[in-house]
Amino acid sequence: MKALYPVVLTLAIVISLPSYAQQQGSPAPSNVRDAEYPYIDSNRRVTFRVQAPQAKRVQVVGLGSKNGFTEQPINLVRGENGVWMVTTPPVRPGFYYYQIIIDGTPVNDQSSESYFGWAHPTSGLEVPDPAFDFYNAKTVPHGEVRVRWYHSQVTGALRQVYVYTPPGYDAGTNRYPVLYLQHGAGESERAWTAQGKANFILDNLIATGTKPMIVVMDNGYARKPGVKLPPDSWGNEAFEEVLLVDLIPLIDTHYRTLANREHRALAGLSMGGGQALQVGLNNLNKFAWVGGFSPFLRDFNLKSVLNNAANVNPQLRLLWLGCGYQDEFYASNKAMHQAFQKVGIKHVWVEGSGTHEWQVWRWYLHDFVPRLFLGL
Amino acid sequence: MKALYPVVLTLAIVISLPSYAQQQGSPAPSNVRDAEYPYIDSNRRVTFRVQAPQAKRVQVVGLGSKNGFTEQPINLVRGENGVWMVTTPPVRPGFYYYQIIIDGTPVNDQSSESYFGWAHPTSGLEVPDPAFDFYNAKTVPHGEVRVRWYHSQVTGALRQVYVYTPPGYDAGTNRYPVLYLQHGAGESERAWTAQGKANFILDNLIATGTKPMIVVMDNGYARKPGVKLPPDSWGNEAFEEVLLVDLIPLIDTHYRTLANREHRALAGLSMGGGQALQVGLNNLNKFAWVGGFSPFLRDFNLKSVLNNAANVNPQLRLLWLGCGYQDEFYASNKAMHQAFQKVGIKHVWVEGSGTHEWQVWRWYLHDFVPRLFLGL
Repeated sequence: MKALYPVVLTLAIVISLPSYAQQQGSPAPSNVRDAEYPYIDSNRRVTFRVQAPQAKRVQVVGLGSKNGFTEQPINLVRGENGVWMVTTPPVRPGFYYYQIIIDGTPVNDQSSESYFGWAHPTSGLEVPDPAFDFYNAKTVPHGEVRVRWYHSQVTGALRQVYVYTPPGYDAGTNRYPVLYLQHGAGESERAWTAQGKANFILDNLIATGTKPMIVVMDNGYARKPGVKLPPDSWGNEAFEEVLLVDLIPLIDTHYRTLANREHRALAGLSMGGGQALQVGLNNLNKFAWVGGFSPFLRDFNLKSVLNNAANVNPQLRLLWLGCGYQDEFYASNKAMHQAFQKVGIKHVWVEGSGTHEWQVWRWYLHDFVPRLFLGL
Repeated sequence: MKALYPVVLTLAIVISLPSYAQQQGSPAPSNVRDAEYPYIDSNRRVTFRVQAPQAKRVQVVGLGSKNGFTEQPINLVRGENGVWMVTTPPVRPGFYYYQIIIDGTPVNDQSSESYFGWAHPTSGLEVPDPAFDFYNAKTVPHGEVRVRWYHSQVTGALRQVYVYTPPGYDAGTNRYPVLYLQHGAGESERAWTAQGKANFILDNLIATGTKPMIVVMDNGYARKPGVKLPPDSWGNEAFEEVLLVDLIPLIDTHYRTLANREHRALAGLSMGGGQALQVGLNNLNKFAWVGGFSPFLRDFNLKSVLNNAANVNPQLRLLWLGCGYQDEFYASNKAMHQAFQKVGIKHVWVEGSGTHEWQVWRWYLHDFVPRLFLGL
């Protein structure tokens, strides 16, 4: 009889497996400690689990158009004890903002970490890439990410900035070039490290020969005190002035920087990409290296730049522009690339498959950073 | 006729005010950018606003017993367009974890920042204190809060630690004493700065004469690889070993510390308070200053300490123990204080009105820190 036990037990387990039976996999890296769900199987199908006993409908949805997870809400299925579950079709590797929708109200998943995106803390799902790990923490020396507070003369308020210092910064006496790196609309100064893993991307690149640098990640929103903004304002009108008046002097005072235009870069994604192009290209006395990652271009003014190609080229060490084919900003970026071409502004144009999401921006950062400060 | 317009307009506004009419006040400091609600009026009554058109019942509740906000869920009232609102009775100043309950399911408030507590990101409400501002950012020099990653020999995994360096650290060459400061159960290494504002408390104290110090805030959870934990395990079993084997050597290697027991303190709140007392008092060759803030004592072993008072006193520069009258741990802490008294272990005992919440721990930190490293 005894020999039968394991067989019976195995059968019982197999029979009890519900329809969302999982293949071998593991909890998502973005889960809170000990949370089993969201669970990612070996085909990158993601199983969600939500406890909502009184709900009539529970759904999960990815945020952002053409996100690689799901634009259309997927219904969870009610099981016992008010537990709702669903397993999605295979998901592309990357980082996705998502929410649970309970009877029409979007809420965060208590099983996942929150990330500041979409103007509030939003659940995030990290789907590991089986092929690439350039943004994962590896056994290489790690830099620090420092949070620094400063009083802005421009806004009259306290601001918080994140500063990556490369491995060995404290032990040495070297001075370093600086990359100013901006987040997208609805995000914050924390996004490039929390969502983008910029610090690990830099650690890994520096470990394999990229020039060590300081990376400064500020908040892209800034308003002057007492200024009444128009209803469609983004609230980022004073960012350029904060960057030039407050931030660059602050960083050059408190860190061992190479404090000149040749050793200063500015880049950003989406809204931050528009800010980087506008502020960078219009202030070439401050920046020699400029990058726009899927930049949002509509509200930014580059006319004077296009009218002055002859002045721009000699000062510009690198202008990097990239956007994915499936990104809603692809057409406007392609047009900008063509406008640069037409007036003869030298630049790197990167296009390829990709939507408006973090996995693309991790790639762009990984492409952009090794080009910086070469030949100096 | 024209003169009547303002009167009519004023009347119309007054008449249209609903029952949750606000007195003059302002949005909570814990709100996300531009969120009007939660709104705190001049009597510290808090108005919440939730959009949930299909919900049958929407409530707001504070987390934690005897929290100064509300233990019992308060019903919001449904208004037009599926917007639910309520104004609470006056709330004590301080920081509160809270959640919105939609038809029985607790969710976060999209209008507030999230704080890692209760083992997942949880909404937080900061209610300003009209009388005290020792934990607010003031116009004094600010230290940095650095995030550092390290590979733990003990757990075999990557860990993240927060390190406060005092104002002027980078510019100078001084070496500093170190306070290791631990969070409570369900929280993380970010709690002392995000919820506790420890960095601003230190900035303000240092600006008025407290000895500058480094503050190290690690995650209090740690498990060895492959160890199967009992079902009631907290998962913090390897913390002591991480602290002694991994963390102290790491900090003493990478920061300008005074690397000896006389210049090393250990304190914590709740679970972290129990950890501080157990690890600190049992390792007096490593620590000379120990603090327990409303410590959870049940699972921690202090017997050998109580049996060796004669050895403890000469090594201990400070033992600080505090707990509020309304705290559920008050009785056990009072008993610990009496046990220390009985065996003659010198200590500071702080009791007074207070529950198990962050405003108390801010006060305790503010009381504890100026006593550290005196006479050295």
